[in-house]
Amino acid sequence: MSFSPGLKDVVAAETRLSHVDGEAGILVIGGYPLEEIAERATYEEMVHLLWHGTLPDGAGLNQLTGDLAASRPLSGVTLDLLRGAAKERRPVIDAVRMAAASLPSCDDTTDARSLVAGLPTIVAAYWRLFHNEEPVEPDPGLGHVANLLYMLHGKIPGEDRVRALTTYLNTVIDHGMNASTFTARVIVSTRSDFISAVTGAIGALKGPLHGGAPGPVISMLEAIGNADNAESWLREELESGERLMGFGHAVYRVRDPRADVLSRAARAFFDREDNGREDDLYALAVHVEKTALELLEEYKPGRRLQTNVEFYTALLLKGLGLHPDLFTPMFAVGRVAGWTAHCIEQRTVDRIFRPESLYAGEMSSQWTPLEER
Amino acid sequence: MSFSPGLKDVVAAETRLSHVDGEAGILVIGGYPLEEIAERATYEEMVHLLWHGTLPDGAGLNQLTGDLAASRPLSGVTLDLLRGAAKERRPVIDAVRMAAASLPSCDDTTDARSLVAGLPTIVAAYWRLFHNEEPVEPDPGLGHVANLLYMLHGKIPGEDRVRALTTYLNTVIDHGMNASTFTARVIVSTRSDFISAVTGAIGALKGPLHGGAPGPVISMLEAIGNADNAESWLREELESGERLMGFGHAVYRVRDPRADVLSRAARAFFDREDNGREDDLYALAVHVEKTALELLEEYKPGRRLQTNVEFYTALLLKGLGLHPDLFTPMFAVGRVAGWTAHCIEQRTVDRIFRPESLYAGEMSSQWTPLEER
Repeated sequence: MSFSPGLKDVVAAETRLSHVDGEAGILVIGGYPLEEIAERATYEEMVHLLWHGTLPDGAGLNQLTGDLAASRPLSGVTLDLLRGAAKERRPVIDAVRMAAASLPSCDDTTDARSLVAGLPTIVAAYWRLFHNEEPVEPDPGLGHVANLLYMLHGKIPGEDRVRALTTYLNTVIDHGMNASTFTARVIVSTRSDFISAVTGAIGALKGPLHGGAPGPVISMLEAIGNADNAESWLREELESGERLMGFGHAVYRVRDPRADVLSRAARAFFDREDNGREDDLYALAVHVEKTALELLEEYKPGRRLQTNVEFYTALLLKGLGLHPDLFTPMFAVGRVAGWTAHCIEQRTVDRIFRPESLYAGEMSSQWTPLEER
Repeated sequence: MSFSPGLKDVVAAETRLSHVDGEAGILVIGGYPLEEIAERATYEEMVHLLWHGTLPDGAGLNQLTGDLAASRPLSGVTLDLLRGAAKERRPVIDAVRMAAASLPSCDDTTDARSLVAGLPTIVAAYWRLFHNEEPVEPDPGLGHVANLLYMLHGKIPGEDRVRALTTYLNTVIDHGMNASTFTARVIVSTRSDFISAVTGAIGALKGPLHGGAPGPVISMLEAIGNADNAESWLREELESGERLMGFGHAVYRVRDPRADVLSRAARAFFDREDNGREDDLYALAVHVEKTALELLEEYKPGRRLQTNVEFYTALLLKGLGLHPDLFTPMFAVGRVAGWTAHCIEQRTVDRIFRPESLYAGEMSSQWTPLEER
């Protein structure tokens, strides 16, 4: 029996959902290279691609759009739970995990819809409750991503905002056998339900080694403040041995393809006149990225540290007016389609994950009564 | 890269918590053979063993008992959630998963206590709410297992009941790298919190391939009704290709050591005069077990199908007056100490699980606009 810590280089499953080639910097989603599809497809089209293996035709898209619209409102149990959690000031991602766990389980198809359609409603409702505002009901006339922004901010968003957020959600929709996706598959492998699987996946995603770290990029940009400070600030971090937030990835050895797509999406978004207020942030980010990459090559030559998905995620989501506390929840809102698709795929495998462990303890200790210990 | 479906024969972690040798029929918990410790230790002693690696002395036991007592009551959010779930008639194990997800996360030590102490309170409170009764507050003067029965039934249980349930909970407290324990470890490996990990583990446990199947043993005994029917009933099942509930295990090739401990516990319990009402059930079970093993050898020679933990679990829990809908929740109440101990152990590893997947799809599909599909 082989022991590979963290299951590195161990294949846990076959999948048709996505392919990550870290050495080549390639990410394929449902057959499409990321850069071919992420900026073009609606989120609903991506969901169809992952659930059914193809992009939908008009009728298929209408059907899916209607199904998701019908699954968007939350039940009383979930809404009450979010109210209670807001009163106790629970962190946003914890509330999202709690609320996901509270969705009623029915059958796989219904559960997948409740999760994909329900997560944005949960995030938006909790964000408003947390800030002492009433939730905004979903609008059946709006698409998936427009609804998310509408339920968060209470006004119908412009097309450029919807496109920018859609591109972000499409970009993070699936990514091979990452820890949260793997969690979902292990849970489903016992023939448990998708609600349980996605609840577990959210729990894994919230860990700082997985999805829980895009906020610090914004803290870094704010600490740097303006372009003139960038080099000295970054040098100081590197010289005191700090990791630079937004650079490096465990898998990608060249530039993370998601960073390319998101930097283009950020540029397109910030180029629009009406988003100009955050324009300085974009210019600063471009300068910080350039400087950081130069300095990383100087301080850590040969390490091939590249801009990662978190860097432009932070920039794009901030540009959309989203607080850093919403970054990991937004990641979950994007990834949930991937999680549910992996659940569907795992169902067809129908084999429980039951790895081995190596025992390192005693084998035959003898009982000692309490009085003699 | 190797691909072993279900990660069979792949070592996922080292552990000092338990060791399963299926070929030899051995289960070691924290250094002690199961039969050495399960019938002697209190549940609190087992928790100490798993969390700290040793059985506690008097002072250590007092400390732990006090800590658990203080962690037993539920917060308003969790209780309100259980009330709402009961109104919507959610299944017991779903409510347990929802309520576990709603526990506030603090630090690892506190979270481990909230989970181990809180799960019995959750199960008991929900069971009562589901049956239109008010929850019974935990009694700080009672131990862990006595409290569980007290909160369920509203009266202080006799020693024999406490001992029987304790032996059950001790017996299922940990069992190598099963799917729920593995789930917990994967979640914690992202540096997520123990509440998230145990919530995911409950989600895995509820699957019928894992913990979700002790109920059918009771259905089988009820269908058989009396000893005279056993042989013909069992023959009919086997001849129509049905699996016999309570026999066979994916790991154990000889008798499951847990079945031995639980059959002794069941005998001791049913031998007590005051539990005599369920005595017939015990005699029937003994007869059914004997007949089933003979018939299994006749119909499936060489398959070495043995009585598993579910068989005597069902009998013992039924004898304690617990409804089959409580069997999987009770399994969770026992296993939660193992889950939290694995979380503690995984923390010291601090390495994310990130296995590989084999991609089986297209690599370079090209975008087609909706109108052209």
